[in-house]
Amino acid sequence: MHILVTNDDGIHAPGILALAEALNEIGEVTVVAPDRERSAAGHSLTLYSPLRVIELKKCFFSVDGTPTDCVNMGIHSLLPFKPDLVVSGINHGPNLGDDITYSGTVAAAMEATLMGIPAIAVSLATFDSSANFPAAAQIAVRVARQVIANGLPVDTFLNVNVPDYPLDEINPSLITRQGKRSFVGKVIDKIDPRGRKYYWIGSDEPDFNDYEGTDFHAINRRHVSITPLHLDLTNYESMKVLKEWKV
Amino acid sequence: MHILVTNDDGIHAPGILALAEALNEIGEVTVVAPDRERSAAGHSLTLYSPLRVIELKKCFFSVDGTPTDCVNMGIHSLLPFKPDLVVSGINHGPNLGDDITYSGTVAAAMEATLMGIPAIAVSLATFDSSANFPAAAQIAVRVARQVIANGLPVDTFLNVNVPDYPLDEINPSLITRQGKRSFVGKVIDKIDPRGRKYYWIGSDEPDFNDYEGTDFHAINRRHVSITPLHLDLTNYESMKVLKEWKV
Repeated sequence: MHILVTNDDGIHAPGILALAEALNEIGEVTVVAPDRERSAAGHSLTLYSPLRVIELKKCFFSVDGTPTDCVNMGIHSLLPFKPDLVVSGINHGPNLGDDITYSGTVAAAMEATLMGIPAIAVSLATFDSSANFPAAAQIAVRVARQVIANGLPVDTFLNVNVPDYPLDEINPSLITRQGKRSFVGKVIDKIDPRGRKYYWIGSDEPDFNDYEGTDFHAINRRHVSITPLHLDLTNYESMKVLKEWKV
Repeated sequence: MHILVTNDDGIHAPGILALAEALNEIGEVTVVAPDRERSAAGHSLTLYSPLRVIELKKCFFSVDGTPTDCVNMGIHSLLPFKPDLVVSGINHGPNLGDDITYSGTVAAAMEATLMGIPAIAVSLATFDSSANFPAAAQIAVRVARQVIANGLPVDTFLNVNVPDYPLDEINPSLITRQGKRSFVGKVIDKIDPRGRKYYWIGSDEPDFNDYEGTDFHAINRRHVSITPLHLDLTNYESMKVLKEWKV
């Protein structure tokens, strides 16, 4: 059993170290991860500049690219075999609702899915510095065992979010659907020491719709949330309406 | 009618200039676009560094960020009003099938949708340098008129691909579903002048499944392809199977 591990918080993040260590229980782990934080990288590829790789230690490769780049580097160059499983994470912070479209963690699992390799994205639903990664890593191992035993539906990967509690205080896993949040974006402008304006992409605290059956609803009640995702964004229901249009 | 125009090929690309000019027919256009090509940027946000803006001329803003950054900058800072419509493109190259998950053009429309603004992504399905952008721009105007007249289904945006032919040789628009391609990725390694390895993310010619009803099928037959997309990636059908799992 060969497992490729990546993330978007960077190769030195505590989440990926806890994950790689825990997954050693069930297979041979190779880590190929960004050299620094690449949060909100989305499903982006580095096409305009080449990539560099540093082998920090045996089976630990640092790449100056995005999580999606790392999956490509691992599978098409650094690993001698196609891995049996790709696990991305453990992200420091939740990946719930529409936010998954920005997530480098989720995008890495998406990339593996496009290559026909079973994949799991794992996130710990807290921004606290005292985040309990070992508990989330144990959950990741349990989900990985299920994926190995049962396989995954075609073109489908799992988005796993874990509440930040000790293992024995976490409620059972729920299979959920992707939730929705009320989007509150903003841009902050400031003046640099040379008197010129610069801007930060900001955000207010997101506001989630706490509907039953969603990822948010599960996490809010201390359950592990497992959402099966696919890559078909077609809104089938709307096709009938649009067919009436005269373009 | 206020229209925000962006793209991922950069503010100097011929596609965005043709699009902005054509959309002037139906509204006041403001362009907020990346200062350079940002293809394959996916739905990425710049969170680690600030952004700079240059107003190249009236209503033409160049931003050193991603297409998704540009939509944020336009809507939360540069435009005095919330736009009535966001149009992204015209991309130089198709955005079909799974490839849309990498696309900065599509991601910009996705971002507008998250903000509750009707949005269209437009791509010209050719990489030829002699690409016929004015014809595609006319198609974009027709689609925009329909969106303005009818509105869009909730949380839904349109991914429009136009075949590269003169306007009178293009077949009628079809409402399509997102197709699938056979993924053939690769990584190419080379040696720099100092004897050190570097890598390029490469790709063979993609191979598409030419199934009826898909975006590929429409484009291959000179039709305009209009795919309604939404942001719910949940694979609902697989939920039943996964609920049998014991995690």
